[in-house]
Amino acid sequence: MVKVSLIGATGYAGGQLLNLLLNHGEAEIVHAVGVSSVGMSLIDAFPYLRGRIKGQVEALDLDKVVDESDVVFTAMHHGLAVEIAAACYQAGKKLIDIGCDFRFPDTAVYEKWYKVKHNRPDLASQAVYGLPELYRKEIADAQIIGNPGCYPTASILSLYPLAKAGLLVPDTVIVDAVSGVSGAGKNPTENNIYCSADGSVNAYGVAAHRHTPEIERILTAASGELQIINFTPHLAPMSRGILATSYAKIKKPLSAAELTVLYEQAYADEPFVIVHPSGVNPKTKWALGTNSCHISVTYDQRTGRAIATSAIDNLIKGAAGQALQNMNLLCGYDEQQGLRLSPLFP
Amino acid sequence: MVKVSLIGATGYAGGQLLNLLLNHGEAEIVHAVGVSSVGMSLIDAFPYLRGRIKGQVEALDLDKVVDESDVVFTAMHHGLAVEIAAACYQAGKKLIDIGCDFRFPDTAVYEKWYKVKHNRPDLASQAVYGLPELYRKEIADAQIIGNPGCYPTASILSLYPLAKAGLLVPDTVIVDAVSGVSGAGKNPTENNIYCSADGSVNAYGVAAHRHTPEIERILTAASGELQIINFTPHLAPMSRGILATSYAKIKKPLSAAELTVLYEQAYADEPFVIVHPSGVNPKTKWALGTNSCHISVTYDQRTGRAIATSAIDNLIKGAAGQALQNMNLLCGYDEQQGLRLSPLFP
Amino acid sequence: MVKVSLIGATGYAGGQLLNLLLNHGEAEIVHAVGVSSVGMSLIDAFPYLRGRIKGQVEALDLDKVVDESDVVFTAMHHGLAVEIAAACYQAGKKLIDIGCDFRFPDTAVYEKWYKVKHNRPDLASQAVYGLPELYRKEIADAQIIGNPGCYPTASILSLYPLAKAGLLVPDTVIVDAVSGVSGAGKNPTENNIYCSADGSVNAYGVAAHRHTPEIERILTAASGELQIINFTPHLAPMSRGILATSYAKIKKPLSAAELTVLYEQAYADEPFVIVHPSGVNPKTKWALGTNSCHISVTYDQRTGRAIATSAIDNLIKGAAGQALQNMNLLCGYDEQQGLRLSPLFP
Amino acid sequence: MVKVSLIGATGYAGGQLLNLLLNHGEAEIVHAVGVSSVGMSLIDAFPYLRGRIKGQVEALDLDKVVDESDVVFTAMHHGLAVEIAAACYQAGKKLIDIGCDFRFPDTAVYEKWYKVKHNRPDLASQAVYGLPELYRKEIADAQIIGNPGCYPTASILSLYPLAKAGLLVPDTVIVDAVSGVSGAGKNPTENNIYCSADGSVNAYGVAAHRHTPEIERILTAASGELQIINFTPHLAPMSRGILATSYAKIKKPLSAAELTVLYEQAYADEPFVIVHPSGVNPKTKWALGTNSCHISVTYDQRTGRAIATSAIDNLIKGAAGQALQNMNLLCGYDEQQGLRLSPLFP
Repeated sequence: MVKVSLIGATGYAGGQLLNLLLNHGEAEIVHAVGVSSVGMSLIDAFPYLRGRIKGQVEALDLDKVVDESDVVFTAMHHGLAVEIAAACYQAGKKLIDIGCDFRFPDTAVYEKWYKVKHNRPDLASQAVYGLPELYRKEIADAQIIGNPGCYPTASILSLYPLAKAGLLVPDTVIVDAVSGVSGAGKNPTENNIYCSADGSVNAYGVAAHRHTPEIERILTAASGELQIINFTPHLAPMSRGILATSYAKIKKPLSAAELTVLYEQAYADEPFVIVHPSGVNPKTKWALGTNSCHISVTYDQRTGRAIATSAIDNLIKGAAGQALQNMNLLCGYDEQQGLRLSPLFP
Repeated sequence: MVKVSLIGATGYAGGQLLNLLLNHGEAEIVHAVGVSSVGMSLIDAFPYLRGRIKGQVEALDLDKVVDESDVVFTAMHHGLAVEIAAACYQAGKKLIDIGCDFRFPDTAVYEKWYKVKHNRPDLASQAVYGLPELYRKEIADAQIIGNPGCYPTASILSLYPLAKAGLLVPDTVIVDAVSGVSGAGKNPTENNIYCSADGSVNAYGVAAHRHTPEIERILTAASGELQIINFTPHLAPMSRGILATSYAKIKKPLSAAELTVLYEQAYADEPFVIVHPSGVNPKTKWALGTNSCHISVTYDQRTGRAIATSAIDNLIKGAAGQALQNMNLLCGYDEQQGLRLSPLFP
Repeated sequence: MVKVSLIGATGYAGGQLLNLLLNHGEAEIVHAVGVSSVGMSLIDAFPYLRGRIKGQVEALDLDKVVDESDVVFTAMHHGLAVEIAAACYQAGKKLIDIGCDFRFPDTAVYEKWYKVKHNRPDLASQAVYGLPELYRKEIADAQIIGNPGCYPTASILSLYPLAKAGLLVPDTVIVDAVSGVSGAGKNPTENNIYCSADGSVNAYGVAAHRHTPEIERILTAASGELQIINFTPHLAPMSRGILATSYAKIKKPLSAAELTVLYEQAYADEPFVIVHPSGVNPKTKWALGTNSCHISVTYDQRTGRAIATSAIDNLIKGAAGQALQNMNLLCGYDEQQGLRLSPLFP
Repeated sequence: MVKVSLIGATGYAGGQLLNLLLNHGEAEIVHAVGVSSVGMSLIDAFPYLRGRIKGQVEALDLDKVVDESDVVFTAMHHGLAVEIAAACYQAGKKLIDIGCDFRFPDTAVYEKWYKVKHNRPDLASQAVYGLPELYRKEIADAQIIGNPGCYPTASILSLYPLAKAGLLVPDTVIVDAVSGVSGAGKNPTENNIYCSADGSVNAYGVAAHRHTPEIERILTAASGELQIINFTPHLAPMSRGILATSYAKIKKPLSAAELTVLYEQAYADEPFVIVHPSGVNPKTKWALGTNSCHISVTYDQRTGRAIATSAIDNLIKGAAGQALQNMNLLCGYDEQQGLRLSPLFP
């Protein structure tokens, strides 16, 4: 058994993680800490879990949380996980940050895009980017994990085989992605209220979204060449799901079938990546309720571009599920434990 | 291990059952038989299960299916399961009919509402109605199970404690229910195409829906008095979920709290029924992806009516999940095996 | 030309009214007054009206508004329109309250259900209930109009022909209704955020909703017998639309066809009520974007109940459109002016 | 008054056009011709128009239709409008093809992408592309109008100011677009049934969609340079709406504000194009129920790309509304007649 605590337990990612942990079998939740909902009964926060949970949302007592936990998960607004990570680090405990404070070893990039100072560049530089498909070994040995963003998870997995094979032509990558509304979080705003989002699609954060440098960093590392990209997120009227449609000129013409083989080989041993034939374009709903990423790739000989689409459940593979996958790697459990989930279709 | 076959494997209920069986751990799927999709690859039928399934949708070879299976599930248009049940019965195998051919011991009622002749009244009369909360013991000993309809499951569970306590005033029960579109099945029609159902609610089958006599029969049996009801189904723009709002005059005034205690006691040992406090009205989404039924009840002293609302996932507790629950009872497995599912919220 | 002002211009009903007034042709909007959004540019409040509107949301200057307007519309939280009505009344100007402050001539009922004191019972008692299908003549002569609630509009129209014909059996009426999320207003709450409402249906305000006495009062008046009812509202995942399904025992058996004739006759001269044949159950989407109410009625001979379903667009016939219809009657315009709207289907 | 006939009256575009024509004021519908629904009552086809329409869907009597009409609209599967156009042409009547048979003056391109022979290249070459913002004068004098596709309308309008200004860098244009499900038409298929499309986004026709050459042709003409593009359509869970997100490297750096001025100037006299400030990203819902195209543009100095998003209602500006706009131009009516529609928000 591993003793875990969640800080930011009542947000969408936190709630999803709590839900998954209840079925993990080897995890004991010792503290569920909230930010705005301290004192609320967990049953009121999660009425659909009535009968399976009890107690209240706790205020943060950092010493106690660190002391009594083996692994701490943070799902908080940017900037807030740094202090918690420092305490975990000092005490030799593991931290998995579902937020964005440990996704950039170079805090100058983080500070430029997030407009907040990072007080522990030393910890940032040794944190591991928690994308098991790329960094499985490093994750197992890490003390601090920066869990990837939802869009970057889908985007990077859609382009990684091209990057690794050295096929990406720099300055040609565009990722156009669509997310369900849960990606906007649980705090009600004029943007995520039902009537504003229902029956409508819009772009946001055009040329300015903070997931851009995260994708660039990993593609640059994987390809060995600087990759500067355009990333445009969109909101679609659904609760969950991300679809990334990624475009890149590639250095030599490859047929759709050849590209598909390249992807199949790159992900041959991955339990959570499913490569479909070219032309079988994944629906986000295929990933609903699971930790899987569904991908299909094709080639447009008219333009010389590879085009890949990838689909995930943004709250699972894009957040809580991947965090649990990282916990499994950190703690030596089967990587799939608690993550053998039935997709909910239709 | 139990050897199971599905007939009608590619409909929504069949697909959901297949999906659940893959995670059951003790079930081996020996035949997946289709009606309109024979010869289709299972991966094409269920692309979201790529990597976990193989083979094709089979044509029905009844002798072979019965011979090689311990339990046969049928999910077919009414009238079609009778012959299959007869073959299973003859061979001493178990049949769970997710369709409606074995929900009525009195085939005259069936024939009146379904407008089709029932060729084996002898089997109908000994089949057990597969609602474990009411008939757990009988199910364990049965050979043929008539799995309840989706609406009846939600409706009956919402009124059963009142019926059992003798509180229902005859001729006052009204069930007004709302279903997601998957209840209309997978065959595309003008009614279930996206643009017709999206952003809209409508009633259908008013005063004429075939689930009416099914609800009446069980409430009559539970209360010991004839219960003739109005049942009105509606379609709402969501894929899954049923909400039943049930009204009944009751024989003596009870507070909302007293009614809630009555419900809690009636379902105290039920793993799949969750009673919420009065005023906490269940959302269908609380049941999404699970085999649970969420219920809340209140009392209107102005009108003397109890009003209960209940929510289920129509494809799980309302079809495939309940069928698997019945299989567990029939075969001696833990009733919850393969059904400890995480609700998908939000 | 009529000079009109809106108080509560940036809520959903206010915005819909502004939108309709821009196309009316005879209405000049002199003040658009806000509550929480004072100072906001109207283009920012209604970006989809860019090019057609200018100026800012104003703070309320009551004297100025009353002085410069012929008709004042209020769309505010309960209790807030009373003072504005008093000022209009004093100055001889017309007031149409889209809120609920003038729907009850007997303020004791209002105070009991709304838990707020009504300071001008004298005005309440002379206000006219703005449902033109019942009170067209009175509306034309009124000075204060209490515009009906969205649910009561659909509910009353679904039962009015039965009430008027003396067919309703007292103590048997149940109205089970479903609304789109815009009925919950524009202020973001945990209930109307997208991920909470999407893919889900739930009841709310069971046995306690404030529209209950409003429906009861009008049905009682129309039938000449006390009608105490159960009214249960539900939330469905759509932006707009109300469907009311109404049940009542009737005093003599009538066929579905006879009932339909009764409804057709009751609404023969109504431009905004459309009676469909029995069995053609209206979709809320048929009314989308229009001021129409679509109705169908049937009879269940097994239970002796008439069952009618009616569909409206809650923001138009259920709020702003009906307010404009009332303005047309008050000011002597063609009742349909500005309301010949194309339904948006699909 | 203009006498018009619709061929393909009961599809989504045909139904929307019928609906708009009823409110036009100067159009008399002389024939509503169907393909698969001949003999159906128009009230059954359009129950939401009960009281405003009568008669039946007619079979095509080409001579009669041409003889009795001034303008014929065709909304048919590709290939089927050619013969009708020929008859109209011969008789000196106007034809507006909402389908795709007259969008390509060079029938070789048409034949390559649509895999069907075009029997009247002479008519194709003299047809005018019915996008009034680019070809207003030519439309007024045309006899055959090829009404633009839904995606091309949104895509071309989003890039036209750049093309016209000579700013597009060839070989860099990518259009990533999302459509509501009505774009897939009314015939039920496994792709447009509710449960398949609800809660899900997917790409389709990747690198192969037939709207690609249509966009390329117009951008090439407008820019004077060959534009070969990638166009990727996606399906989103909404009934109506198209959002196009268009990327292009531009020949000189321009600020977002400068680009916005360029767009405002290009569309200064356009009644149906609304340019929003950079950063105000249009929602498809802003265009819902209207003939408007909402656009916003920005510039990414990191990558040298202009990025524009544009939103339309696919059935109005993307089909029937634009066809009516073309009819107005052809017949000398005010271009906005029958098209001053209130946007339906929320």
